[in-house]
Amino acid sequence: MTSFASRHIGPSPDEQDRMLKTVGYESVDDLMSAAIPGSIRWHQGLDLPLAASEAEVLGELRALAAQNRTLVSMIGLGYHGTHTPPVILRNVLEDPSWYTAYTPYQPEISQGRLEALLNFQTVVADLTGLDVAGSSLLDEATAAAEAMTLARRSSKVKADVYVVDSDVLPQTLAVLRTRAEPLGIEVRVVDLTAGELPEEYFGLHLQYPGASGAVRDHAQLVAKAHDSQAIVTVAADLLALCVLREPAAIGADVAVGSAQRFGVPMGFGGPHAGYIAVRKGLERTLPGRLVGVSKDAGGAPAYRLALQTREQHIRREKATSNICTAQVLLAVVASMYAVYHGPEGLREIAARTHDMAARLAAGLRTGGITVEHAAFFDTVTAVVPQRADEIVEAAAARGVNLRRVDADRVGIACDETTTFSHLRDVLAAFGVPTHVDEDVADAVPAGLRRTSGYLTHPVFSSHRSETAMLRYLRKLSDKDYALDRGMIPLGSCTMKLNATAEMEPITWPEFANVHPFAPAAQTQGYRRLISDLERWLAEVTGYDAVSLQPNAGSQGELAGLLAIRAYHHERGEARRDVCLIPSSAHGTNAASAVMAGMRVAVVACDELGNVDLIDLERKIEQHADRLAAIMVTYPSTHGVYEEGIAALCAKVHEAGGQVYVDGANLNALLGFAKPGKFGADVSHLNLHKTFCIPHGGGGPGVGPVAVRAHLAKFLPSHPFLSGDAPVGPVSAAPWGSAGILPIPWAYLRLMGPDGLTKATATAVLAANYVAARLREHYPVLYTGSASLVAHECILDLRGITRATGVTVADVAKRLIDYGFHAPTMSFPVAGTLMVEPTESEDLAELDRFCDAMIAIRREIERVAAGEWPGDDNPLANAPHTAAVVTADTWERPYPRSVAAYPAGVDASAKYWSPVRRIDDSYGDRNLVCACPPASAFEE
Amino acid sequence: MTSFASRHIGPSPDEQDRMLKTVGYESVDDLMSAAIPGSIRWHQGLDLPLAASEAEVLGELRALAAQNRTLVSMIGLGYHGTHTPPVILRNVLEDPSWYTAYTPYQPEISQGRLEALLNFQTVVADLTGLDVAGSSLLDEATAAAEAMTLARRSSKVKADVYVVDSDVLPQTLAVLRTRAEPLGIEVRVVDLTAGELPEEYFGLHLQYPGASGAVRDHAQLVAKAHDSQAIVTVAADLLALCVLREPAAIGADVAVGSAQRFGVPMGFGGPHAGYIAVRKGLERTLPGRLVGVSKDAGGAPAYRLALQTREQHIRREKATSNICTAQVLLAVVASMYAVYHGPEGLREIAARTHDMAARLAAGLRTGGITVEHAAFFDTVTAVVPQRADEIVEAAAARGVNLRRVDADRVGIACDETTTFSHLRDVLAAFGVPTHVDEDVADAVPAGLRRTSGYLTHPVFSSHRSETAMLRYLRKLSDKDYALDRGMIPLGSCTMKLNATAEMEPITWPEFANVHPFAPAAQTQGYRRLISDLERWLAEVTGYDAVSLQPNAGSQGELAGLLAIRAYHHERGEARRDVCLIPSSAHGTNAASAVMAGMRVAVVACDELGNVDLIDLERKIEQHADRLAAIMVTYPSTHGVYEEGIAALCAKVHEAGGQVYVDGANLNALLGFAKPGKFGADVSHLNLHKTFCIPHGGGGPGVGPVAVRAHLAKFLPSHPFLSGDAPVGPVSAAPWGSAGILPIPWAYLRLMGPDGLTKATATAVLAANYVAARLREHYPVLYTGSASLVAHECILDLRGITRATGVTVADVAKRLIDYGFHAPTMSFPVAGTLMVEPTESEDLAELDRFCDAMIAIRREIERVAAGEWPGDDNPLANAPHTAAVVTADTWERPYPRSVAAYPAGVDASAKYWSPVRRIDDSYGDRNLVCACPPASAFEE
Repeated sequence: MTSFASRHIGPSPDEQDRMLKTVGYESVDDLMSAAIPGSIRWHQGLDLPLAASEAEVLGELRALAAQNRTLVSMIGLGYHGTHTPPVILRNVLEDPSWYTAYTPYQPEISQGRLEALLNFQTVVADLTGLDVAGSSLLDEATAAAEAMTLARRSSKVKADVYVVDSDVLPQTLAVLRTRAEPLGIEVRVVDLTAGELPEEYFGLHLQYPGASGAVRDHAQLVAKAHDSQAIVTVAADLLALCVLREPAAIGADVAVGSAQRFGVPMGFGGPHAGYIAVRKGLERTLPGRLVGVSKDAGGAPAYRLALQTREQHIRREKATSNICTAQVLLAVVASMYAVYHGPEGLREIAARTHDMAARLAAGLRTGGITVEHAAFFDTVTAVVPQRADEIVEAAAARGVNLRRVDADRVGIACDETTTFSHLRDVLAAFGVPTHVDEDVADAVPAGLRRTSGYLTHPVFSSHRSETAMLRYLRKLSDKDYALDRGMIPLGSCTMKLNATAEMEPITWPEFANVHPFAPAAQTQGYRRLISDLERWLAEVTGYDAVSLQPNAGSQGELAGLLAIRAYHHERGEARRDVCLIPSSAHGTNAASAVMAGMRVAVVACDELGNVDLIDLERKIEQHADRLAAIMVTYPSTHGVYEEGIAALCAKVHEAGGQVYVDGANLNALLGFAKPGKFGADVSHLNLHKTFCIPHGGGGPGVGPVAVRAHLAKFLPSHPFLSGDAPVGPVSAAPWGSAGILPIPWAYLRLMGPDGLTKATATAVLAANYVAARLREHYPVLYTGSASLVAHECILDLRGITRATGVTVADVAKRLIDYGFHAPTMSFPVAGTLMVEPTESEDLAELDRFCDAMIAIRREIERVAAGEWPGDDNPLANAPHTAAVVTADTWERPYPRSVAAYPAGVDASAKYWSPVRRIDDSYGDRNLVCACPPASAFEE
Repeated sequence: MTSFASRHIGPSPDEQDRMLKTVGYESVDDLMSAAIPGSIRWHQGLDLPLAASEAEVLGELRALAAQNRTLVSMIGLGYHGTHTPPVILRNVLEDPSWYTAYTPYQPEISQGRLEALLNFQTVVADLTGLDVAGSSLLDEATAAAEAMTLARRSSKVKADVYVVDSDVLPQTLAVLRTRAEPLGIEVRVVDLTAGELPEEYFGLHLQYPGASGAVRDHAQLVAKAHDSQAIVTVAADLLALCVLREPAAIGADVAVGSAQRFGVPMGFGGPHAGYIAVRKGLERTLPGRLVGVSKDAGGAPAYRLALQTREQHIRREKATSNICTAQVLLAVVASMYAVYHGPEGLREIAARTHDMAARLAAGLRTGGITVEHAAFFDTVTAVVPQRADEIVEAAAARGVNLRRVDADRVGIACDETTTFSHLRDVLAAFGVPTHVDEDVADAVPAGLRRTSGYLTHPVFSSHRSETAMLRYLRKLSDKDYALDRGMIPLGSCTMKLNATAEMEPITWPEFANVHPFAPAAQTQGYRRLISDLERWLAEVTGYDAVSLQPNAGSQGELAGLLAIRAYHHERGEARRDVCLIPSSAHGTNAASAVMAGMRVAVVACDELGNVDLIDLERKIEQHADRLAAIMVTYPSTHGVYEEGIAALCAKVHEAGGQVYVDGANLNALLGFAKPGKFGADVSHLNLHKTFCIPHGGGGPGVGPVAVRAHLAKFLPSHPFLSGDAPVGPVSAAPWGSAGILPIPWAYLRLMGPDGLTKATATAVLAANYVAARLREHYPVLYTGSASLVAHECILDLRGITRATGVTVADVAKRLIDYGFHAPTMSFPVAGTLMVEPTESEDLAELDRFCDAMIAIRREIERVAAGEWPGDDNPLANAPHTAAVVTADTWERPYPRSVAAYPAGVDASAKYWSPVRRIDDSYGDRNLVCACPPASAFEE
């Protein structure tokens, strides 16, 4: 029967033959032999299970799922049961028009998800009461770490002390410590009920409500901290904020947290949308992505990413955060949960959740059990001297997981899914009467009850029926261009198939509804899946150990560099703190190095785009025994297999440095070369690129880190799994975004060793095919041996721009009229387009793209020839909306048909950009990051 | 927490208050008291379980699902294991853009599913070799029955004998008998291997391969039948036809069968797409729907339903079939399965399936077991004297279901999902060596091997990668307008919410992968669900017994009338054969009566649209003791609660007749009146209307029949469930389309008695609100007491058409430009539009519709005023495609903006019709019912 690999790989064998002819090779093997340096070529194949069919793999995953037990979770600690409204589950999380979308860097064709993210920002800003919220961070713990460094940058205090509430979530504290140490920050944990604050500290982190469940009025503490010029971050539970006084009202400068319980399944720890919000004045220090309102060429409001100049890929070693993704798909789910429930609905859910906790506390007290805190929202801590283990066990036997705080205390967290029957089970586990249906008093102190309104924008009251919600989701996704419409040839981003069989399992209840701290005996399915995946990833990369914890590539980088740092420290070589980074590197590399406490030294590239080995030697010599590591991307960010990679590794090792190979381009190596075997010590991978986790409109990502044996013990640890370890956690959950690991597991299992190898070769063939077809129209900037590129190619438009004024942006926007997402613009080289076709596009689509690019080149010629003015031509005016092309008046020097249906566009299936070209700088000058009033859209 | 009912019901309480104000009532209760005749009003509420939340209901359904055991099915008999490609499962069966679509009566906005259906017709025509295939029938057995009556109409033979191959599927034979008896046809079962054919017979039904698995060369038999001027129908397995000689090549006039094994889950019996195809010359006798190619107003090819004048709703008592739906959603799945696999893929699946059967036969023979037939495709009959029970049991113990043919024989059917491991389990159950991996010979006789090609159209070779398939599905669904875009205010069709929570369970493996003849012990979950549903439906309708077997409303009608017929016969009143039908009735009623062996007598309606009780008395008197029944729809097809219904029932009963109340409009009664209590004896319900099974673009439907106690024993039986019964089956499977019964079960469970009652009242309120808002712009044709309508209202355009020339079609097509699906056109009254808003549309959408209708009325005024010519105005030219409005030249007397963005249309989310108005008669004159070549679409 047809193999999965032949479904995943776009071009059929026939098509591949035709492509080879164009590229000038007899066979794929010849091509790969010519493209990949012999020095790194791996000939022994991959030791992986042979490919299985979709039905078989789904069967195996069902068997793994059956080994997870989904008890009622009352563990809390930032992970709560929640009902994902089915209409949102099916039409967002399970809908390719949402999950196959890319980060909205082309905002004109991303208005749907940008609107959803603006809704998310409005939810966070409204509930926290703060002025500006970002469009999501990776999780609560890393958001807290980002807030810590934001505080350090923003506070005038010189001391390196960061004060943390002792009632902080344990995983947040652990991540704060991991992140603080290389930066020289001292994390000081203080029991704030005792109230002793240090003399000098640059920031204060409060948990609200506390991990214990306690709800305290922090207003005075905050005022005190402000007197000391410290920046105050409140880590707050969004559902609690529906009934509790908002962080802004108690004076917070920053709020962080998780939007998980707004309809996002627990997924054994993630992915979920972390959030961050800041008061006015701090918005330009905000890490991560921010959606803002700007206007399009016709003056209509339009959304786009705001203040992008803050971002790591632009600021490089000056960056203050290495965050380069978000949790868009999950933020969309959370935002839609708020849209669907509206303020009344959320308030009702919060009130009901609180009521459950209050009933539980009453039941415990009636039964003679001491409840630790009088004021709480959803979590009750019961004091049961020496009985905690026994009670937790009794509850589990009744199907409920509780939190063992310590031998004497048990934590019980209520949530949206809690029922009277759950409460009775808990009370029974405590051995007290199970009466829960009497009225009970509120346990929120009067002074902490929320009085301000929220979610007053009409979007939060217009989509309350399922029908209306369904249509709103469709309306938004219809505005967007994702892989379900056509090719997204984004260099360095690997927008390939996210197969349905890979996606199906992640919403099965047995994978979705598992708390990350559930007992090991209940999570055997996950643990087997994770251990398979670690083993398989080690095999394909040639490393010895893998950690799946980092929940984004950036976090993988940090984890890898922290491992190198710890390694040098352990060997008494703590002085080694210089990280060499080639000038062509992705900005994140430098940012991560800085976060890992390293100094960045840039190594030059030669005119072919390769690392300049002479300059490398110079830099090695210069930094001598301060050399910690080199970070290189392979194939390079230029999309080339550099010949000198093996030599480079050898030179750095000789000098005592470690070699970090950024695995962003692993999809050009899989089956043909293994970084762990050709000289690297550590790599991070991007499971959302090579291993088919969908980009989800800009997250989730997963960025595992793989190391050789000598670095294995320096991989990230987690307080839930182990005690002291040399390196702490980089993510909140033990296995980061475990909930989506079935996707790469399924991909590896479906493709098998041969399928993976074929995919690599086809990706390289496709890139070389595009290069061969377009070379005479656009110069291809860098190539390796035999003039071949690897898995992507750079089209150099700089000459064209000089000669004609037509820019890469013009070409990118004109491609929208042709029905394409643009290639990567001006990365890694300004004035160029980088095209990565991937293995999943069939020849028809590759040709449609090449034909469009050639047709655009002819349009450029007409501009060059003066036939069309430089500022009024189909390129400069692109994208053309239907409203523009159907307008009653048309005064362009080209006909409407050229605007609307350029060569090759199927008129009956045309994708129309919903807005005209967006003015970025207007939006940055006039920053609006929450839902604009409807009147803004009136004509 | 927010109840499901408040999500299902569109208007919020506030909105309802505003609507009531417009209609002129204080409360919903006042409105309902005024609208519904007191004589039928039910005051005791509904005895149903109280409403549960989505999470609770999904939990209950998971518990029911867990009571089904999904063994490997090798039972065969027309139901086979198949792999639904995940990309098709998710993006068709689980995608609201496909499943919430309506029948493509508005072809301009249905081009996507019409193309998919044309692909289906091409698959059937190519594989059977016949010239014209329909767009699907209900199942194989009813398709065979349709072929029988087609043969009777088309054959010149006068004898009423229909010869049926003794190797026919048992359920097909049973349905043929049910259908033959009232028509006076004698079904004669003949063992055709013996070869004795009767002297005279009008038709011959052959099974190919036979139920026993035997593959026989029928060519000589067919020639002989043709010599006798009989019409030959071959019931053929589509997968077998990928390797066997096609029916046309052996001379078949008609082919029927099921497309189930082309990717459609077994679902405990359905729904699946039955198929029918005929040779040239018979196409105008084809029952059911037929998609054909025509052209639009610009001359471009466009699809639409062809030869609609054949259909029952037009031919009424002259109709030859009562079929008025198809199995569109399942036909789309099957067609996409063929598109995805292509001819090579299908051939490979067929060859592999055959190879499995051949290995099994070899293994059995090696073990000393006699295999009954030398020639077979996928099914082997093993001869095991007195051991059948023991072997079937042993196989079940190993997880495999086999077919017990009789005490001495076991049938084993292989399919796409069969593996060596299954074969070994089967051999082990027979107690023979389990060796299956040696090469075996082909068991298809050389003379029966297929030599002709199929599926050569490019669509069957262009979408082989998952990426390409996903985009093809999106491209097609993007052309269509379904409930996920906006309101479909189709009178009599009840296009309301199909909630996700209702839809989710149907693709769970425990419901999807169950054979209809699996042992009762393995199907307890289904049986409980079915018995709940029967009980609940009986309760809400006031009847005593319900059969869920009819898999469409039309089949429910037939079953109901057959029950009445059998009742009279049993009482010795076989002479009672006249069925009274009001002139306003749906055409299907009359067609069903004819099929049930009755003569139709029409009862007049008065000028208010009500049944004329004087004429009724006249007709009762006239037919006296020939009176069998009256069939009335309540509320009437005019959308009115007729006051006289109780009197009508009494009069008919007095005269010895039975009262059949067509339940098509039950959604206007639920909770407020029960037909079984106000005088009716029998009703069929439409679960795809009132009970939320989605229309799926024109099927599946489910049409259970509900009866009072005296008719209970005349409900449809089934050979798999019981032996002799007074009335046989009307569908192939015991519970018809059991696979989608979780939908109405969930709806009833989610809404509870109060929710259902509220839904009814809101539907009536919404219809009256629309009537109130539009009355001054368009006359509302019929109303009941207090000038109220029931759940729908008829807008009378006849005066407007006379005065201005603007037709209902013009208004319907212009509504597309405004972003709406048209109301029902010219039914039940020519020249009118019937609007049924349902309870699921919120006030914003109701108002958007009313505003559009009023804006269109103003456009009509401009035509009337001579401002725009009668043949060149926005109405006459509607719908306007993007290509038309963006054309370089524009010579209309109105501006482009009026064409493209009439009042209220959101330009950033505009739905564009992909084609211009379609010329129906051109297509009927030039009948093309298979995929046209790509060149046809070139400009």
